[in-house]
Amino acid sequence: MNPLTRSNHLFGPLFSDPDSEALWGTDRFIKGFVQFERALALALADANMVPQSVASEAVTDIDSFVPERQKIATHMVQDGMPVPEFVRQLKAHTRPSALPAIHTGATSQDLIDTTISLILQDANVRFEAQLAELLTALDALNDTWGNATMMGRTRMQAALPISVSDRIATWRNPLMAYADRLKTLRPQVETLQFGGPVGNRASLSPHGDAVAAALAKNLGLTNPVRAWHATRESLAECANWLSLLSGSLGKLGQDLALMAQQGVDEVKFTGGGTSSAMPHKQNPVRAELLVTLARYNATQLPAMHHALVHEQERSGSAWSLEWMVLPAMVTATTTALRHADDLIQSIESMGQSAP
Amino acid sequence: MNPLTRSNHLFGPLFSDPDSEALWGTDRFIKGFVQFERALALALADANMVPQSVASEAVTDIDSFVPERQKIATHMVQDGMPVPEFVRQLKAHTRPSALPAIHTGATSQDLIDTTISLILQDANVRFEAQLAELLTALDALNDTWGNATMMGRTRMQAALPISVSDRIATWRNPLMAYADRLKTLRPQVETLQFGGPVGNRASLSPHGDAVAAALAKNLGLTNPVRAWHATRESLAECANWLSLLSGSLGKLGQDLALMAQQGVDEVKFTGGGTSSAMPHKQNPVRAELLVTLARYNATQLPAMHHALVHEQERSGSAWSLEWMVLPAMVTATTTALRHADDLIQSIESMGQSAP
Amino acid sequence: MNPLTRSNHLFGPLFSDPDSEALWGTDRFIKGFVQFERALALALADANMVPQSVASEAVTDIDSFVPERQKIATHMVQDGMPVPEFVRQLKAHTRPSALPAIHTGATSQDLIDTTISLILQDANVRFEAQLAELLTALDALNDTWGNATMMGRTRMQAALPISVSDRIATWRNPLMAYADRLKTLRPQVETLQFGGPVGNRASLSPHGDAVAAALAKNLGLTNPVRAWHATRESLAECANWLSLLSGSLGKLGQDLALMAQQGVDEVKFTGGGTSSAMPHKQNPVRAELLVTLARYNATQLPAMHHALVHEQERSGSAWSLEWMVLPAMVTATTTALRHADDLIQSIESMGQSAP
Amino acid sequence: MNPLTRSNHLFGPLFSDPDSEALWGTDRFIKGFVQFERALALALADANMVPQSVASEAVTDIDSFVPERQKIATHMVQDGMPVPEFVRQLKAHTRPSALPAIHTGATSQDLIDTTISLILQDANVRFEAQLAELLTALDALNDTWGNATMMGRTRMQAALPISVSDRIATWRNPLMAYADRLKTLRPQVETLQFGGPVGNRASLSPHGDAVAAALAKNLGLTNPVRAWHATRESLAECANWLSLLSGSLGKLGQDLALMAQQGVDEVKFTGGGTSSAMPHKQNPVRAELLVTLARYNATQLPAMHHALVHEQERSGSAWSLEWMVLPAMVTATTTALRHADDLIQSIESMGQSAP
Repeated sequence: MNPLTRSNHLFGPLFSDPDSEALWGTDRFIKGFVQFERALALALADANMVPQSVASEAVTDIDSFVPERQKIATHMVQDGMPVPEFVRQLKAHTRPSALPAIHTGATSQDLIDTTISLILQDANVRFEAQLAELLTALDALNDTWGNATMMGRTRMQAALPISVSDRIATWRNPLMAYADRLKTLRPQVETLQFGGPVGNRASLSPHGDAVAAALAKNLGLTNPVRAWHATRESLAECANWLSLLSGSLGKLGQDLALMAQQGVDEVKFTGGGTSSAMPHKQNPVRAELLVTLARYNATQLPAMHHALVHEQERSGSAWSLEWMVLPAMVTATTTALRHADDLIQSIESMGQSAP
Repeated sequence: MNPLTRSNHLFGPLFSDPDSEALWGTDRFIKGFVQFERALALALADANMVPQSVASEAVTDIDSFVPERQKIATHMVQDGMPVPEFVRQLKAHTRPSALPAIHTGATSQDLIDTTISLILQDANVRFEAQLAELLTALDALNDTWGNATMMGRTRMQAALPISVSDRIATWRNPLMAYADRLKTLRPQVETLQFGGPVGNRASLSPHGDAVAAALAKNLGLTNPVRAWHATRESLAECANWLSLLSGSLGKLGQDLALMAQQGVDEVKFTGGGTSSAMPHKQNPVRAELLVTLARYNATQLPAMHHALVHEQERSGSAWSLEWMVLPAMVTATTTALRHADDLIQSIESMGQSAP
Repeated sequence: MNPLTRSNHLFGPLFSDPDSEALWGTDRFIKGFVQFERALALALADANMVPQSVASEAVTDIDSFVPERQKIATHMVQDGMPVPEFVRQLKAHTRPSALPAIHTGATSQDLIDTTISLILQDANVRFEAQLAELLTALDALNDTWGNATMMGRTRMQAALPISVSDRIATWRNPLMAYADRLKTLRPQVETLQFGGPVGNRASLSPHGDAVAAALAKNLGLTNPVRAWHATRESLAECANWLSLLSGSLGKLGQDLALMAQQGVDEVKFTGGGTSSAMPHKQNPVRAELLVTLARYNATQLPAMHHALVHEQERSGSAWSLEWMVLPAMVTATTTALRHADDLIQSIESMGQSAP
Repeated sequence: MNPLTRSNHLFGPLFSDPDSEALWGTDRFIKGFVQFERALALALADANMVPQSVASEAVTDIDSFVPERQKIATHMVQDGMPVPEFVRQLKAHTRPSALPAIHTGATSQDLIDTTISLILQDANVRFEAQLAELLTALDALNDTWGNATMMGRTRMQAALPISVSDRIATWRNPLMAYADRLKTLRPQVETLQFGGPVGNRASLSPHGDAVAAALAKNLGLTNPVRAWHATRESLAECANWLSLLSGSLGKLGQDLALMAQQGVDEVKFTGGGTSSAMPHKQNPVRAELLVTLARYNATQLPAMHHALVHEQERSGSAWSLEWMVLPAMVTATTTALRHADDLIQSIESMGQSAP
């Protein structure tokens, strides 16, 4: 949506990167849809809804399926989702005898939401690694500079001296808490979506829950008690976690930008941005960006809460709003973690003699 | 801040009630400040920072202390907090020999944040009760009407028939999840604040942590590893929970307003609002209000995340923003639970024959 | 809604004041409803919809009407508005022969929206005065300190020296623009609401527009081409103006808080907040509050834009959301102007020698 | 930033299009930077700051300049802006004798902000055309169906019959108002940025204003009284206009989605979305998307108001936040206008007999 912040734009490297974009790319969605249909075929056989041989044929045909992407995109505006045309093409590609194992009991939302769960799984793995790396960098910083003294400041006024370690603790402790929280959040967010047309698995009755269980197992996702087509609190919780994390990194960035002021001089960086007019200036670009990304995610968050007002069995309006916001929040958070790590690594010295 | 939505205003009963206001009232804050100073005096003695006799004298004087509230309010604009003048009055009231047990090692933020933790404790107890009551009402509704049929609707279009029970599950399941989540959230939110002027308990060293532990025990609050003057994620988590809850109640309200439409006719209420021009109309006022309160809380939430960018050891700017937002969110959520319960109780019939 | 920020609360003086609350008080709404019905009676006579004598009787009865407020509040939850019961009482009080001149052609929303227009008229008059006063204070500040030198700072780094006057211009110029904008905004915001039950003045046809014209004239409000029951862009524009103004005052506050830092020392205030633990500290409380109020209003603004999605002829949900937000934004903006003026008046010296 | 909503993504056609992306693309920024430097060289000559011959040489060299884009992007993270490296390359490309006419008196922000003004100029021209087209479509709709009757609905309940024309007026009138407002907004938004390193044009003194005047004229932009490096209200006004427009289109979409419900049946579309599970369904995808886009823009808007808290002479943090939000809002608004027009064009019939 924002043509300015793509990784291949002049401004892009500040905001995004190709890996973050690939995480949500067309390839990933196509792969997710295929993963879903493949796992569903096997799950239908597991639950004795179709013979094993039919499932095997279906899997073979799914594995050889190459969708016409342009045609799917063309149907997007009319259908509001890429799945109906994808399924039409897949069914056309599948041998008739295997059709009972294709998309049976499923609906478009099942494929899209499940793919997003798989994407968030990948994102969470990356967040764990990025958090661990940043915490290691903060520990190293603390080892080197923690005993130095700096001025404690309240309401932007000098108060009493503190140790650099005191300040670093205000950056580090929330990150520890988020790493812990992620452990309980992951199974909640990385969850199968499977409900069929109106979310109650009715067309597979009484085997709907058995198919769901097998499907979740095949995909490595949590099997929820019920489809969550219209109950979106897990995604809102995920968005909250992202904004908490970038918010605390915003404090780190704000602190470092304030510490880098002339007259305060409590931190020195290697590198630092230049200016077209004043080549001598060293701008704390990454520190400022952390504040930007914190405010960006805080701004996005309410959209995911407005999307909780998800009327009836499926709200196209509330659902599409998630698509516009959640991928951007994941990207902003990854970018913030990257900038924070680079920023901490670039610190040359911290602290000062008390005035 | 909003003079229109006070309980004693003509418009007030829709938005607030005297109990919700008393929860955050001046009395409650004065009581909280007194609770803090009293528990601190005892904790200082527990940690052998002052003799037991001095703590006892201090407690006696604290118990007989009646602050001049108007004078505290007068100092508010200058100090940005009501505590400095409160402490000045308390010290003036206390016998000199007991002064070592008054406010020692504490700062204004310790009193205010701890009082807010105590208020949130009361609020959480009420939320537990309100949630239990609403879940009971939904269970009763499900017992009566759950087997009836109604039309499942996706993208605001009739799809396939579902049971009323299917729809009720989309209202009930998130509420169950929030009741569970509240259990782990409570100890995180109901937490002692105690850090002293710059948040590191330095003036009590090496007994700061012992005093904190005794203080937390005295007050019935969690003892955190460190003061959280500048790390506000627990309050942001609390705000997120409030907005999740009101958001899901917004879905319930939106669904019922849609079900009450002429031509859809899937629910019938007793009562319902009247109109000055069309006395025959029955308006689903409470259902609409649930959507309003959902969007209100979603709107407020980012302020609590912007407040995470809490610079240095204390940000007057970020901290005051919490005061403007969190009490309003707690009130809105209580009000939403009240309306939801009343609304569910007022349902006369649900479901319809499939078209 | 927020019990913490009322003027009669311990924390209140920082956020509100009795005048701001009276602007939106129950008295003002009752007065507005009475003003509307009185002006309507006269307008109906002007348009020859009722005889002049009937209008005169109605006016006499309206003038002697004392509503039972508690009863109105009691009906609030059921009706979602205070007007139906107000009108019922007024009609009960009015002699039967005068009833044709009471509420004829009107609906509840006409009375509430028109009263809010009248309230905003009063608020705008006050904003004009507050802006003029603040601009005068800034001019005086510029006269005294404008020629002094200070360091220009970009990306929180010292860049090149500027004059104090350069900095003051970045505070003053947007305020000038807002004063200008208010002139064109006032007639758009201070607008009669008059549409009747479904907003098309149909029950007065073909005299609806004539009645509206007379009514607007009687009330000193703009007569719009059509009722704006469901088209709320003028209120959203009003909210935008409020947030622009408090946002620019937030810049002023942020700048002054940064200038007051030790090591920067570019401004000195008389007074300044105190601390319970460090009595020597002078905290720039009002400067910080300006940032708080800027972020508060920015946070509220989207609610007024979500309220544009105002379905059909009247959305109880979207309309009530305005009530929760707009009065708080008006109050926050008045408070910000008051703090800004006090802050500017409290400046003792500005600028520094260039390093 | 959002990899899901790019035009070349499977989901993209719903949210974006290549033209909207080109508007903010790398080519456009490079072109804008070049336009700026070219116009500046000529303006410097106009103001007799450099000889005409030097300006001519500079223009010749600017015209033959092909920047190494990858190198610019590489410097982005360090500098936080693409301009310093662009200017370095341009200076390296320019003959030494022409250097006095390159970038003299300018700073990076001048080039970026001015380019954004030029982009918004193009966007505004397109908005004018899109609004005119949509108003024409609404007029045609009104001509065909305006006299039909439909049920007026308040608080989601049937009230009294209205004409289809009454409903269309609530869609059309705000759009008329926005078209008018755009006329006064355009000169405010399409404004030259020119202030030099600290925003006061000091290095060109006393010819700074003369250069600015010539530069604005050369570029077809408004010449502001002063550089607006740190006073961003015009961009916030622009964002407000975008969100007002998409908000009112959200009402149109919400109304049409409600009208399309079975049991209400007040509108019939050609086409409409399909479902992978229920091929008979006709989903009002575009109507729902209009609500989505309204809530998206309302969500983004506060970021542009938080960006008003733009500290000192240039805030990297606040400025970068604009980049993350404004291009997305422009794109969302264009997309909403496109969907609205398609939606209105696809209406087959409107209205119904009153019940």
